[in-house]
Amino acid sequence: MNKQLLFVNRPSGFPQQDAWNLVETEVPELSEGEVLIRQHFVSLDPAMRGWMNANRSYVPPMELGEVMRAGTVGEVVKANGPHKFQVGDMVSGWGGVQQYTCTNGKGYHKLNTQKVPAPLYLSTLGMPGMTAYFGILDVGKIKPGEVVVVSGAAGAVGSVVGQIAKITGCRVVGIAGGAENCRYLTEELGFDAAIDYKAGNLRKDLKMTCPEGIDVYFDNVGGEILDWVLTRIRMNARIVICGAISQYNETIAKEPANYLSLLVNRARMEGMVVFDYARSYGDAVAQLAEWMQAGKLQSREDIYVGIENFYETFSRLFNDQKTGKLILDIR
Amino acid sequence: MNKQLLFVNRPSGFPQQDAWNLVETEVPELSEGEVLIRQHFVSLDPAMRGWMNANRSYVPPMELGEVMRAGTVGEVVKANGPHKFQVGDMVSGWGGVQQYTCTNGKGYHKLNTQKVPAPLYLSTLGMPGMTAYFGILDVGKIKPGEVVVVSGAAGAVGSVVGQIAKITGCRVVGIAGGAENCRYLTEELGFDAAIDYKAGNLRKDLKMTCPEGIDVYFDNVGGEILDWVLTRIRMNARIVICGAISQYNETIAKEPANYLSLLVNRARMEGMVVFDYARSYGDAVAQLAEWMQAGKLQSREDIYVGIENFYETFSRLFNDQKTGKLILDIR
Repeated sequence: MNKQLLFVNRPSGFPQQDAWNLVETEVPELSEGEVLIRQHFVSLDPAMRGWMNANRSYVPPMELGEVMRAGTVGEVVKANGPHKFQVGDMVSGWGGVQQYTCTNGKGYHKLNTQKVPAPLYLSTLGMPGMTAYFGILDVGKIKPGEVVVVSGAAGAVGSVVGQIAKITGCRVVGIAGGAENCRYLTEELGFDAAIDYKAGNLRKDLKMTCPEGIDVYFDNVGGEILDWVLTRIRMNARIVICGAISQYNETIAKEPANYLSLLVNRARMEGMVVFDYARSYGDAVAQLAEWMQAGKLQSREDIYVGIENFYETFSRLFNDQKTGKLILDIR
Repeated sequence: MNKQLLFVNRPSGFPQQDAWNLVETEVPELSEGEVLIRQHFVSLDPAMRGWMNANRSYVPPMELGEVMRAGTVGEVVKANGPHKFQVGDMVSGWGGVQQYTCTNGKGYHKLNTQKVPAPLYLSTLGMPGMTAYFGILDVGKIKPGEVVVVSGAAGAVGSVVGQIAKITGCRVVGIAGGAENCRYLTEELGFDAAIDYKAGNLRKDLKMTCPEGIDVYFDNVGGEILDWVLTRIRMNARIVICGAISQYNETIAKEPANYLSLLVNRARMEGMVVFDYARSYGDAVAQLAEWMQAGKLQSREDIYVGIENFYETFSRLFNDQKTGKLILDIR
């Protein structure tokens, strides 16, 4: 049998548990040229909330009744006819929140899990790592000596952004929720400073940690934090708009009231979507893996167990009850 | 005697007449190395409102008691000792709203008013022209075939932006206030379409005039117009933040609530200040003059008379009661 999480109710605001329905269905029969993947790990990402909205974003919205969209890592357990994948291969793709996925293999790629633990392909060597790499280097265009601020800094993307900025020779300040996450940034990841946005002194803390202003801001959060950062940007600053997790469950968005700071400072605010860099993923993976091997880059995966616990785990995306990449082990 | 307009009351919201005080003082004695300029024309610009605020912007705020800051064109009528300017030279600089300016000449440059009417050096061959030129070409990076929208389109900057975009081979839509200004854009300047924002159908009109979306938006206005434009930008769009005249007299700013459209569309919003291009002004003037001579670029100056009428004329900056560049003739 195949446990599948179906998306059944479009939420307004923060989703309730009834947005999804866990069902058991027959493991599907394979058509010619298809493989069956037994999923091991499911990626939980803030972007999931956006996919649940009815309006078109950078990908089409989810339809009611669909299996909940998610990145996955799993093992090929069956094949019907010759295929680019062999039984036993570990593969990653958009398998969705379900135990078994039947696919022709399009959009999947084979992983090397001899050397690299499989969950890493959903974090630093997967989409979050790619997002961090191209966002901070290609859009943020960081240079040694610059002051870089990143929000959502203890998360899968933000933690890699900050470490890449450190490797590049920047001064790095991370914004995260809670004292433990802040400690993680400065003591384990080597950030120069961390700001606990929950402490309620955002404005003062930004001033204290960035007395000479901010050259590059990598924004995962939006809302009030973006607005305060805008008051402290330097000339020719770059703001990378990667996400706005503080806004995903809001029905009325908090806008960047201080956007005219872009004018005064000849600064730039630019959006990015990682899929645009698909052709260069290979280069990024090679570089990130090299940094990890050299001990310059750390990756943390926060793994919870059981497809039944999807909702509780999903909620951790939004309440700072996790550190690093959030993953569900559904074996 | 020298009539001078002093800035005496810092306004909140739209300035009342008592923000300024018109006084008569002695024409100052020249020190060694100074010249006396009899000002002919004073430039009136939306940016003036920003200079009256206490907070630092891209230039220091004005101090109370100062002569009102303004760009000017005037004639050198006296010199004390040898000088780069001769008596009789026409010169442009930051002379302020006053009939006579005494200066060592720093920041002034000599004009060729044999061939070119003097007021043009405050419009298309002056700061507004420079702003349009570098803003739309260097920041907007327009390409032939793109859809370009410009707000404040009947103004000194916007009208040049639109015409440069037409010369480049873009489809150009101007947003202006009032039917007459819109007629001016399409019938006299050759814009492809014009939207009267006062007609109250901004959203529908944008949809109708830009059915396939917007590649470049040159924003002089901010507020609601920027926010609606954000809903219609295309992939890799560029938004040039040049000004926000709709906001200059507001105490609470209207923010770009739809800024996440930058993310979805991998788009960019970037501020610009013309002074950064000072070293290239000469090239821009040459190109703009060539276009004018070839009949490809029109310049309109809306000239009012009398330093006593400063307040009434200043008000025209904000109520759409002008077309083209607003200038005060104070001879």
